[in-house]
Amino acid sequence: MKTLFARAAACILIVSGVAFAEPLPLPGKIVDFRSVDGQRILAESRFWSAGYGRLSAVFETQKTQSYCGVASMVMALNALGAPAPVTPPYGPYAVFTQDNILDARTDAIRPRDTILMRGMTLDQLGGIASLYPVDVAVHHAGDETVESFRTAAVKRLASGDAVIIVNFLRTALDDEHGGGHFSPLGAYDEKEDRFLMLDVARYKYPPAWVKTADLFAAMNTADPDNEGKTRGFAIISRRAAAPNAPAQ
Amino acid sequence: MKTLFARAAACILIVSGVAFAEPLPLPGKIVDFRSVDGQRILAESRFWSAGYGRLSAVFETQKTQSYCGVASMVMALNALGAPAPVTPPYGPYAVFTQDNILDARTDAIRPRDTILMRGMTLDQLGGIASLYPVDVAVHHAGDETVESFRTAAVKRLASGDAVIIVNFLRTALDDEHGGGHFSPLGAYDEKEDRFLMLDVARYKYPPAWVKTADLFAAMNTADPDNEGKTRGFAIISRRAAAPNAPAQ
Repeated sequence: MKTLFARAAACILIVSGVAFAEPLPLPGKIVDFRSVDGQRILAESRFWSAGYGRLSAVFETQKTQSYCGVASMVMALNALGAPAPVTPPYGPYAVFTQDNILDARTDAIRPRDTILMRGMTLDQLGGIASLYPVDVAVHHAGDETVESFRTAAVKRLASGDAVIIVNFLRTALDDEHGGGHFSPLGAYDEKEDRFLMLDVARYKYPPAWVKTADLFAAMNTADPDNEGKTRGFAIISRRAAAPNAPAQ
Repeated sequence: MKTLFARAAACILIVSGVAFAEPLPLPGKIVDFRSVDGQRILAESRFWSAGYGRLSAVFETQKTQSYCGVASMVMALNALGAPAPVTPPYGPYAVFTQDNILDARTDAIRPRDTILMRGMTLDQLGGIASLYPVDVAVHHAGDETVESFRTAAVKRLASGDAVIIVNFLRTALDDEHGGGHFSPLGAYDEKEDRFLMLDVARYKYPPAWVKTADLFAAMNTADPDNEGKTRGFAIISRRAAAPNAPAQ
């Protein structure tokens, strides 16, 4: 009932061509990061999340409604301080953007116009990220358990040397709007067993604390665009040795 | 000496066309938000900064190197949940962007092509923000003191119903690169008397904790583009009454 009302309210607001710059309400089991509870969980979680500072500092909105994977990769590479291209409009400063991360090399994995129309799969995200001087490990949820996901993600979050990008089905998380989606995880709270999802669709949902079991269930869904393989997560980490090849 | 070395190192990295996606090092008296100390200060500061969650959730990079004022206003309006336009590529969702905040009405205050070339002054930022259904108060540092600035900013940050945008001279803050700049403040830490500056030039500097006195001194500088008036700060706050006019 609450959801129906929220949806009706959103429609009424949108009819006028103007609506409040306020994301949609989250399902009850998800905690809005901006709320009093959301901020309390952040304070509780800090010893588990050395990477929070670096990732929140580069939080950005996906450039189009199909660019969730692109935005998530840009956040990961910038948070890890990977060698970045110097391109307009930011030269002489080096930074990854959703405009300079895709090129002829990445087109061989997934052409830019296809990403613009339909996004990408978890394996394609892993393939594109692997073209940059970082270490990439792709994990399909069907090959994992809630426990193995939690253990792997918490360990890397705590170290601060890796970014976890999750690929999940929004409707399986009880979100009303959307299909497959990517976003990076910013922190973990042991007390509530929740991950902070820095949702790159910021025009739609705010950052939120999601229960590990709920998140895993939403990752453990078949992706029809990926030969029915399950969604899952990618661990993108700083390469130990100095990079030998330029990023672009 | 440290600064000279850092500058030389940055030049060497940039010569190759690739550099690490890592902002410039901050002057010693400024604390990097991403550091262990920076995260500790955030934990200490939370009771002073109800607005941190809302503002950090909409943190974004200025779209061009002259768009610091535009990006700061977009963050303020989104953080406050002001009535926003529904525009591509995010329709049917409503959100302010650096592409939809400027229009023919704002051109009357500062034409878009002039902002693109030269940015804007504090008074122009106040004028443009006032076209939206929020309350705007512009304060020139020359009319204020460190104490009056601290009191006003802390009170509004703590309430979470306003965003403080500061306009300051980078070189007066000991930053080596840049002139006049805008960015919003995300939090305040009483113990160290520092504000968290969510610097929108994220390709150049990370978010950082700045001493109140240092920040005020950098605001209390004459802006030659604004008839020699001092820089300062704008308080953009949620309007108490329901908005009557659409934003666009």
